[in-house]
Amino acid sequence: MAENFQLEKKLMQVYDGSADRDGISGSRLAKRLGELSQIGRTEDNGSKRPGFSLEEKAAKDLVMDWMREAGLEVKQDGAGNVFGRLVGKNDSLPAVLSGSHVDSVPNGGHFDGPLGVLAALEVAQAWKDAGYQPEKPYEVVIFSDEEGSRFQGGFNGSEAMMGYIDLEEKKKLNDTEGRSFEEVLADVGLTPEGFLEAKRSPEEIDMFVEVHIEQGKRLEKENLPCGIVTGIAGPSFLELTFTGQAGHAGNTPMNDRQDPLVAASEFIYQVNQLPRKVSESAVATVGKMHVEPNGINVIPGKVTVFVDVRDIAENTRDTLLSQVEGLANSISGKHGIGLECEEKMRITPVPIEEETQQLLEKAVESNDIRPYRLPSGAGHDSMIIGTKLPIAMLFTKSKDGISHNPDEWSDLKDCVETVHVLKTFLESKVSGS
Amino acid sequence: MAENFQLEKKLMQVYDGSADRDGISGSRLAKRLGELSQIGRTEDNGSKRPGFSLEEKAAKDLVMDWMREAGLEVKQDGAGNVFGRLVGKNDSLPAVLSGSHVDSVPNGGHFDGPLGVLAALEVAQAWKDAGYQPEKPYEVVIFSDEEGSRFQGGFNGSEAMMGYIDLEEKKKLNDTEGRSFEEVLADVGLTPEGFLEAKRSPEEIDMFVEVHIEQGKRLEKENLPCGIVTGIAGPSFLELTFTGQAGHAGNTPMNDRQDPLVAASEFIYQVNQLPRKVSESAVATVGKMHVEPNGINVIPGKVTVFVDVRDIAENTRDTLLSQVEGLANSISGKHGIGLECEEKMRITPVPIEEETQQLLEKAVESNDIRPYRLPSGAGHDSMIIGTKLPIAMLFTKSKDGISHNPDEWSDLKDCVETVHVLKTFLESKVSGS
Repeated sequence: MAENFQLEKKLMQVYDGSADRDGISGSRLAKRLGELSQIGRTEDNGSKRPGFSLEEKAAKDLVMDWMREAGLEVKQDGAGNVFGRLVGKNDSLPAVLSGSHVDSVPNGGHFDGPLGVLAALEVAQAWKDAGYQPEKPYEVVIFSDEEGSRFQGGFNGSEAMMGYIDLEEKKKLNDTEGRSFEEVLADVGLTPEGFLEAKRSPEEIDMFVEVHIEQGKRLEKENLPCGIVTGIAGPSFLELTFTGQAGHAGNTPMNDRQDPLVAASEFIYQVNQLPRKVSESAVATVGKMHVEPNGINVIPGKVTVFVDVRDIAENTRDTLLSQVEGLANSISGKHGIGLECEEKMRITPVPIEEETQQLLEKAVESNDIRPYRLPSGAGHDSMIIGTKLPIAMLFTKSKDGISHNPDEWSDLKDCVETVHVLKTFLESKVSGS
Repeated sequence: MAENFQLEKKLMQVYDGSADRDGISGSRLAKRLGELSQIGRTEDNGSKRPGFSLEEKAAKDLVMDWMREAGLEVKQDGAGNVFGRLVGKNDSLPAVLSGSHVDSVPNGGHFDGPLGVLAALEVAQAWKDAGYQPEKPYEVVIFSDEEGSRFQGGFNGSEAMMGYIDLEEKKKLNDTEGRSFEEVLADVGLTPEGFLEAKRSPEEIDMFVEVHIEQGKRLEKENLPCGIVTGIAGPSFLELTFTGQAGHAGNTPMNDRQDPLVAASEFIYQVNQLPRKVSESAVATVGKMHVEPNGINVIPGKVTVFVDVRDIAENTRDTLLSQVEGLANSISGKHGIGLECEEKMRITPVPIEEETQQLLEKAVESNDIRPYRLPSGAGHDSMIIGTKLPIAMLFTKSKDGISHNPDEWSDLKDCVETVHVLKTFLESKVSGS
């Protein structure tokens, strides 16, 4: 552990302590974010804590120490998920869970994940300091390997808790260095079989609440510390291949071309106009494409376009998906261009219950913040848990929407305000009403 | 030299000899195309005869033998250009030149270049056999290094003849293997200084006539053996860089995007509609583009688009160029996207005189072929010579428009028909009228 906690210093430089109240401490939060940032710190001050690495384990160990300080009973399951439990007055009631993850992408930031874990912990610490015992049990959670950069597929910890693990498939996985799932787990004292034991009965859990940085710019534009997530958009990816006739750019007259790039371009331009007709939260993006042969004086023969389609409700997402496919078909038909369409991924969106959003809104208002609702375009552990259990999510303002990058940043005041809202909301949930 | 002349066999398989007349022999042409195809033949039966290679030299040496057989006086200039001269009755008149090149791209075909040289030679042979001596001198020409794949810039032989050589620039050149221009030339007994001596006075030359395969599909569609070239389109390349704001595809709402790919796509789609408004022969092509960072779930931050703009007349080509730039400006402005526009190349188009085209039309008609005019989208040695001297060009039908590829193909009957048209046209020129 390095002595020089730059992140803590940077966080405190612009924090005047004005948001500290009700046992929530900005300086403690900053100190802990700073300490975590030292584990797996990269050359350019980013974070490298892949799932199931010694760095992720060290980060979990550190948080477990803090959990014990906060009076929590700490357990780790077979998938490496960590639960710090505050016993409820009526401890047989289903528990309210809150947390996130401490793993990171290869050169990530210091807020994506840690903020959610430390926010949940800060609430437990405040309750301990105030001598408050909730009616229901409360658990601070660290899920393993949310980012999934190591095995090209994340949510391993939350999926294990929900019982979504296909052990045979997992055993076939190799990480980016060619090491098997089993070998990698062994480094941190885990086994694939442990993942099956990690399953918890849904009856044990009342709700999962996750605080996360927004990774977008809506809250920054609204100048709000935090916002209420309306749902988690299920990403779906389409791969569209437009096929025409390659030819010499000089010797093929305009009226004798079958140029797949012209068709693909009309498609990309028009696809941008579809989401707003479907819903306010729907998005469609072409971020990746390949032109073949990609020669300056050659009419392309083949163009592959990838479309990322998302919405927080399954019906509007699926409507948009079929409109995107329909547009590609009609444009390729018009241009006499071949088209193949392949669905590469379709994850079910998870809307958040209106009742939950209203309760979050009350918690926001009671902390003198204007309530603002926004969708989550990215996936989170709550997306996995939300497939069967009630979930709630709060987003904290992100600077410039930057994420998965060492420049990821949220002001400490905004983080602390979010913890207050989380605390108010959790108190309404754990009180046993 | 391999014994097995596959190309000759393939050419003769579908030739019934019906086009042989007036001393022009399909079997001789096939045999010579076949023998040349053995020099630098690649594994997949393509041709590899880079400029100034031993293979190009061997091909020239072989053609020089045939020139002598045809009664021509053979000379080679300091740039390696070969001239086989038939003395005219009035030998002080400017000479009529016809020919092409025998070098090839790294894995090219057997018609691009050789057909033009052997067609010109076939005419000389027919004249010799018929005891015909033209009024004006006639020269069969092989220009060195037309393709330019070795030093990334072709037309070295024709430029030397026209006096367009910048010796200091040439001396700085290195080939694809890192060898200097001087070293490479030494392999084939040439020197950079020799290029300066290769210059010929324009007064010595009446006209240059080039037969070449079309490298397009117009003649195939018209079902014609050959066509009259109206001009050689000067290629011009624009590099357009559209710059926006990269972001997460899930977390950036549609109304808060600056997506340079959407702007670039509208541009590519619309640029395709501009040429037909400018002229029938104008073309504009986007064949190459780069999307950054090119991630499936990332809104692109930067898109680079290359536009190839051509026409056979400078004014329409330049009109189209400025319309393309104007379109890029207006679209990027509309989308709030940054734009940089850089001109990477602008070669002056060479139109062919109407009078010459009419004379070619007569030659075509007198060989019972329907006259058909078409532009040349690709550059040829005649483009260099046409900057100062009258030129004429005939295109021969190409199968599927394939070129610079081992699959390049023209039926022997179409080649022979083209030679007849060339012969008729040359007779009208060398007769001294």
